[in-house]
Amino acid sequence: MTDLETIKRFQEIQKRVKERMDKVKHKIAIVSGKGGVGKSTFTVNLAIAFATKGHMDRVGILDADFHGPSVPKMLGIKGQMVASDSDGILPLIGPLGIRVVSTEFILPDENTPVIWRGPLKMNVIRDFLAEISWGELDFLLIDLPPGTGDEALSIAQFLPDLDGVIVLTIPSQVSQVVVKKSVNFARRLNLPVIGIVENMSGFVCPNCGTKIDIFQSGGGKKISEELDIPFLGNIPIDQRICEDSDNGKPFILEHRDSPASKAFMEIVDKIEEYLEKR
Amino acid sequence: MTDLETIKRFQEIQKRVKERMDKVKHKIAIVSGKGGVGKSTFTVNLAIAFATKGHMDRVGILDADFHGPSVPKMLGIKGQMVASDSDGILPLIGPLGIRVVSTEFILPDENTPVIWRGPLKMNVIRDFLAEISWGELDFLLIDLPPGTGDEALSIAQFLPDLDGVIVLTIPSQVSQVVVKKSVNFARRLNLPVIGIVENMSGFVCPNCGTKIDIFQSGGGKKISEELDIPFLGNIPIDQRICEDSDNGKPFILEHRDSPASKAFMEIVDKIEEYLEKR
Repeated sequence: MTDLETIKRFQEIQKRVKERMDKVKHKIAIVSGKGGVGKSTFTVNLAIAFATKGHMDRVGILDADFHGPSVPKMLGIKGQMVASDSDGILPLIGPLGIRVVSTEFILPDENTPVIWRGPLKMNVIRDFLAEISWGELDFLLIDLPPGTGDEALSIAQFLPDLDGVIVLTIPSQVSQVVVKKSVNFARRLNLPVIGIVENMSGFVCPNCGTKIDIFQSGGGKKISEELDIPFLGNIPIDQRICEDSDNGKPFILEHRDSPASKAFMEIVDKIEEYLEKR
Repeated sequence: MTDLETIKRFQEIQKRVKERMDKVKHKIAIVSGKGGVGKSTFTVNLAIAFATKGHMDRVGILDADFHGPSVPKMLGIKGQMVASDSDGILPLIGPLGIRVVSTEFILPDENTPVIWRGPLKMNVIRDFLAEISWGELDFLLIDLPPGTGDEALSIAQFLPDLDGVIVLTIPSQVSQVVVKKSVNFARRLNLPVIGIVENMSGFVCPNCGTKIDIFQSGGGKKISEELDIPFLGNIPIDQRICEDSDNGKPFILEHRDSPASKAFMEIVDKIEEYLEKR
């Protein structure tokens, strides 16, 4: 391709992304500096929460984690994206009509590693935004891989009207260093930060009720004050969360009355407030 | 540069990496499909274990995690790599003479995010291997970022004589899907897999002694059997591990008699057996 053709092709794709994304009211990215803080679990439960609060069939999740896509398993979805309508390839449908697109679906089988170099990953994210028939949505949640690499840069480039970024962390100090990096990264790219959520925040022994701070405590609140960013709340550790994820069941539906679910729903309220004010 | 010049330059770098790495007896990479499974904590404590077992001043850590380098903080090291000898830039020195090179040291400050695209990261890893005056070492441990991306590819390219890869995981099923990917990735690149370690394997309430499987149980052993890979052992959750990491103190030195330290030392024995047999 000549340079002119390349530019033209890029502009066409940008236009296609814009057309599709104009039909999505709110776009929220969920990030974490460090991996393993429960980002996918949070994303899945946030989608469920929105769906149950009057947005049935109008929530989508883009699982942009190339190295460890786990959203489909957590929602109990298996399969490949093969169906399409006149508008493009169709997402798979999870509980409460949640539309899910994941790198998982385009891999030959779940054990295939994604040995993909950066530029290739960027193209896949672009195609997920440009070629998928997302339809009309109230919310699109984007589960980004940990860190501040290619995937996050791509989202920033292709979604200039992103509502904002939710930063997930665990309480430890070691994690906060990485959270600062994430927030600085978002700021450099002019992405609004909705707030910080502290996950795995303390554990209450189901037998004796003793509270143990397995991953320390208070780091999320402290860092949010230091960086002058809203603190959205903390979600305690509950061994049933991991169990539910393994069984493909969203925790907040299975254990509505648990302290973790209640903490979660308060965070959802704050996110909704943010979106209303915007 | 012309193509010929590029090839020549690449060959020169390869030669320099080889010269340096010939002085290092054992090179081990620590990987995890998913982040947040305690990979850096494991690496730091493995280095300490080797150092205490007759290899003082002869252990090095290459912290190749660009997005969340935490090895320096866990070893209580601060600073930048500014000193050099006739042989190149010198690593920083941690407890027991452990030589540490981390992306952390080359960043302006600890809050700077690394907005680096793939090819750039590859160059940095190459330079860490080619330009650092590592000296004579018995062990070089390479803490790779989670996933199967550019960094892992680079290590495979530049260190064809790697002794092997240790795969770290937590017990949950969701994690095992990602572990499979990591193992398949290593196999495709012809990297030997030393074995699988299950971290965060059960929690014993310090008050009442009840064991709770916060992140499920048994996943590591099960996946190792399925993939026909040695299972090196499981390390229980201990809230003091996170506390020690935050304070820059290696857990196995601080709490030698804890079940977690004992489990850890058994794993170290198995790794040594593997290296002897090789």
